[in-house]
Amino acid sequence: MNTIKVSAPATIANIVCGFDVLGMALDSPNDIMEVALLSEARVVIKTRNEFSIPLDPKQNTAGAALLAMMDELSNKVGFEVTIEKNIKPGSGIGSSAASAAGAVVAANELTGKKFSKEDLVRFAMCGEKVASGVKHADNVGPCIYGGITLIRCINPLDIVCIPAPELFITVIHPQIEVKTSDARAILRKEVLLRDAIKQWGNVAGLVAGFMSRDYELIGRSLEDVIIEPVRRILIPGFADLKKNCKEAGALGGGISGSGPSVFMLSKDKNASVRVEEAMKNVYDKLSIEYHTYVTSLNLRGVTVIT
Amino acid sequence: MNTIKVSAPATIANIVCGFDVLGMALDSPNDIMEVALLSEARVVIKTRNEFSIPLDPKQNTAGAALLAMMDELSNKVGFEVTIEKNIKPGSGIGSSAASAAGAVVAANELTGKKFSKEDLVRFAMCGEKVASGVKHADNVGPCIYGGITLIRCINPLDIVCIPAPELFITVIHPQIEVKTSDARAILRKEVLLRDAIKQWGNVAGLVAGFMSRDYELIGRSLEDVIIEPVRRILIPGFADLKKNCKEAGALGGGISGSGPSVFMLSKDKNASVRVEEAMKNVYDKLSIEYHTYVTSLNLRGVTVIT
Repeated sequence: MNTIKVSAPATIANIVCGFDVLGMALDSPNDIMEVALLSEARVVIKTRNEFSIPLDPKQNTAGAALLAMMDELSNKVGFEVTIEKNIKPGSGIGSSAASAAGAVVAANELTGKKFSKEDLVRFAMCGEKVASGVKHADNVGPCIYGGITLIRCINPLDIVCIPAPELFITVIHPQIEVKTSDARAILRKEVLLRDAIKQWGNVAGLVAGFMSRDYELIGRSLEDVIIEPVRRILIPGFADLKKNCKEAGALGGGISGSGPSVFMLSKDKNASVRVEEAMKNVYDKLSIEYHTYVTSLNLRGVTVIT
Repeated sequence: MNTIKVSAPATIANIVCGFDVLGMALDSPNDIMEVALLSEARVVIKTRNEFSIPLDPKQNTAGAALLAMMDELSNKVGFEVTIEKNIKPGSGIGSSAASAAGAVVAANELTGKKFSKEDLVRFAMCGEKVASGVKHADNVGPCIYGGITLIRCINPLDIVCIPAPELFITVIHPQIEVKTSDARAILRKEVLLRDAIKQWGNVAGLVAGFMSRDYELIGRSLEDVIIEPVRRILIPGFADLKKNCKEAGALGGGISGSGPSVFMLSKDKNASVRVEEAMKNVYDKLSIEYHTYVTSLNLRGVTVIT
């Protein structure tokens, strides 16, 4: 086998109270990536879209992830990657992660599956470093494992899959730019112990809610008293979005990654569609362009198509 | 039925990273309490031990809890409580909580079980307020529900039972005094966001470890980067205790409540006995008096004996 095509899903990092530790994979949108094995140790990046992504492998998230993987491969091979980008860069739903994760999963298939999923996350994190300046696994973790993942620790890497019930996710992507570096910069370096305790009580409740399939507990625990109060100013109409989506039946939600997308979780499909309507109503009034997605929890992660 | 005898277990609050939110009940020691129904609305406290506990109902944890319960009882009744205290006051394993929880569970049995467990926790918290100045449910929660409980929120009260695998607990109670108020006072009001994130990652891992019966994950998650680094100075030999107990096979552990007791969790009975030996060795060298307990996770909470 010399070429392979994979589908790499969008992901939501920072699930409300689970800032920097909890992420989930979505059934759509997906980046589609074709990877071909080369006999020389080099990486070639091609794109099928108009999005301007860097084609220099060291500057490209898929390229940097593959170069990290090649460092640990004993045989001298390279990869040509053709990316059909369906997850818009800068949307806050793991666009860079999908490219990095898709590339290393495909390359691993082409070279005899020498690496574990954890290894692949480690390589994909090098792609994230190129994209955001920080080696983080909040998106590449769920992208590769599927479902909901806890990144308990980065060094040493400790990824825990959190079983969850069926969940429907509605995402609105306002067509505004929120730079990850800005979203990081406005956070306070110190937080009140009192707030931190409330946050880890909610994180514990959220994990327990997912694992015991208790939708009400999930809903009650979807509360972020530390990050959201600071970052919500970056998202126009955020308070209305939350209020109206909950009234429409959402369990709760918040900022996806560092924004600008906002996501809401629902127990059933019908609610997630009503939530989409509620989101549209808020943004139609604001006269800001947007895209919406109604999708479900992706349990497979990156998948081989052919 | 006019009298009842109940057994109220010791509890561990602040399970390592789960400061202020996670607690567990122990199979031993237990306070034994006899409660008799009175036809007048008053509370009488008697004790079978030499421990000096306040006999004025308003100043006594069992008394204050019963008075809170009587406020919500429609019929005018009172209670005479005789306490056989086996959990030493000030030990840090929920002595005040056991008295408060045992009293209200017994009184509820005597008056037709009008209240839910959550109501009983609410009443017992009034007993905790007398003991420590703070209405908290970290001990009365697991004491009444049994097992491991998450107090996700105090107001409104949200108690979540966390399923867990078989666990053995070794406790050492050094015969020194650590005042809860002092242990509170030395905590910083602000903490680094970076540390808080690490802590809630560990809390998520600990809950996931309990619920998926993954002892290794439990062990890796038993890490407290916020409270323990401050409070450990109050416990002589703390660093040696932790190191030697882990070498003896403990999954991990930390300060019980606000101390001075230190607890360690183990996967099996044999390990918990080896851990007890390791604890004794540390304290024998320090020439500080101590008691040790080897026990297991109590799944029943307060139980009616007769």
